[in-house]
Amino acid sequence: MTKGELLYEGKAKMVYETDDPNKLLVYFKDDATAGNGEKKGTIQDKGIINNKISTFFFKLLKTHGIESHFIEQVSDREMLVKMLKMLSLEVVVRNVAAGGLARRLALEEGTILKIPVIEYTYKNDDLGDPMLNRYHIMALDIARVHELDEIEHIAFTVNTVLKNFLRAKNVDLIDFKLEFGRDERDKIVLADEISPDNCRFWDMTTKEKLDKDRFRLDMGGVEEAYKELLTRLIA
Amino acid sequence: MTKGELLYEGKAKMVYETDDPNKLLVYFKDDATAGNGEKKGTIQDKGIINNKISTFFFKLLKTHGIESHFIEQVSDREMLVKMLKMLSLEVVVRNVAAGGLARRLALEEGTILKIPVIEYTYKNDDLGDPMLNRYHIMALDIARVHELDEIEHIAFTVNTVLKNFLRAKNVDLIDFKLEFGRDERDKIVLADEISPDNCRFWDMTTKEKLDKDRFRLDMGGVEEAYKELLTRLIA
Repeated sequence: MTKGELLYEGKAKMVYETDDPNKLLVYFKDDATAGNGEKKGTIQDKGIINNKISTFFFKLLKTHGIESHFIEQVSDREMLVKMLKMLSLEVVVRNVAAGGLARRLALEEGTILKIPVIEYTYKNDDLGDPMLNRYHIMALDIARVHELDEIEHIAFTVNTVLKNFLRAKNVDLIDFKLEFGRDERDKIVLADEISPDNCRFWDMTTKEKLDKDRFRLDMGGVEEAYKELLTRLIA
Repeated sequence: MTKGELLYEGKAKMVYETDDPNKLLVYFKDDATAGNGEKKGTIQDKGIINNKISTFFFKLLKTHGIESHFIEQVSDREMLVKMLKMLSLEVVVRNVAAGGLARRLALEEGTILKIPVIEYTYKNDDLGDPMLNRYHIMALDIARVHELDEIEHIAFTVNTVLKNFLRAKNVDLIDFKLEFGRDERDKIVLADEISPDNCRFWDMTTKEKLDKDRFRLDMGGVEEAYKELLTRLIA
């Protein structure tokens, strides 16, 4: 597998062409941002850990029948993935009120939601990633109704699989963000990463945060939290 | 029908008890606000005109099988309505991008949406009426899934009836806001008002605004626009 041209550099990852037009190489960086890029920093070895954690979760999901873009981990910081046509959507699943939802609705952080909530935001930095609902998504031609049904089915299944798995590790899955793309046959496929960068993980006993909120909120112990989560997964 | 105690005073209406515990008297004021109360003013005779326009639309909807809280117009500024347990929701139907949607998604005002869009906001001034989706509404216990289905069915039917009626008056229905309540048998019933205060009406030929945007945007000709809309309805 030859690493080709850089196609795209995001906040936490770089994406390269490979010698196979249907495969991409994702490189996980240590760079961290928060608040739509307002806060910038580095979390040492984050790229290595998030590559490992994402690999772990994508493999776990596969054993539960959920396909993703993941093909294989090829180095410490590199993952080989299927090329997809990405949707400009962030799909957030929430079990417990935290972050933006808690602020927006004045819910105390930690309030258990009566049902899991799916939220969509339009992946558009210039607009500040505004919230969308299904009607907006269809009106803007971002996705069609059967695709949204499939996205929600996958998102809820990921939630159930990860929540149950993490509970056995004494970790509460508070919320997480997914991204999706269309494969060459226009099938909806899970993409991006699943890591402490885009999930909230709390220790079930102490409620200690094991995720990027430690960076967002300047809590310290960021590297240790990422490592602790990985350690629990592979224990 | 005796006017009883003032139960509630809103930005544009006052609601009174009557001698019948199942009926309320709504009094339409001339007060106008915009931007969640930041801009305040008066639109002369607005209360009289909006009472007439709302009465007209509720009667029109009834001939198309859509029940509402409307019982009868009892004076220039007063309408008798059924007592409902109101939902803390604003239900917006949009055919064309304008106002908040145009700003949020950087769409040019006047862009025709591919499909009509329903948006929900949480009727809560302290929180700034945040946008909700169906999952939020269910998680917050504001309404249940079959109630949301009923609300969306009514909202889309209102849209079709009003759009078709207004087209014959050379008026484009851009968007409108509805509110709903539960009756004594917990049936979802359309409530509030339907007027230039909570709808956008554009002349189809000139694109002239015949609604509260003239007040919001300091365009002048506010009273004339409300009167013009009424005149076209009853012509």
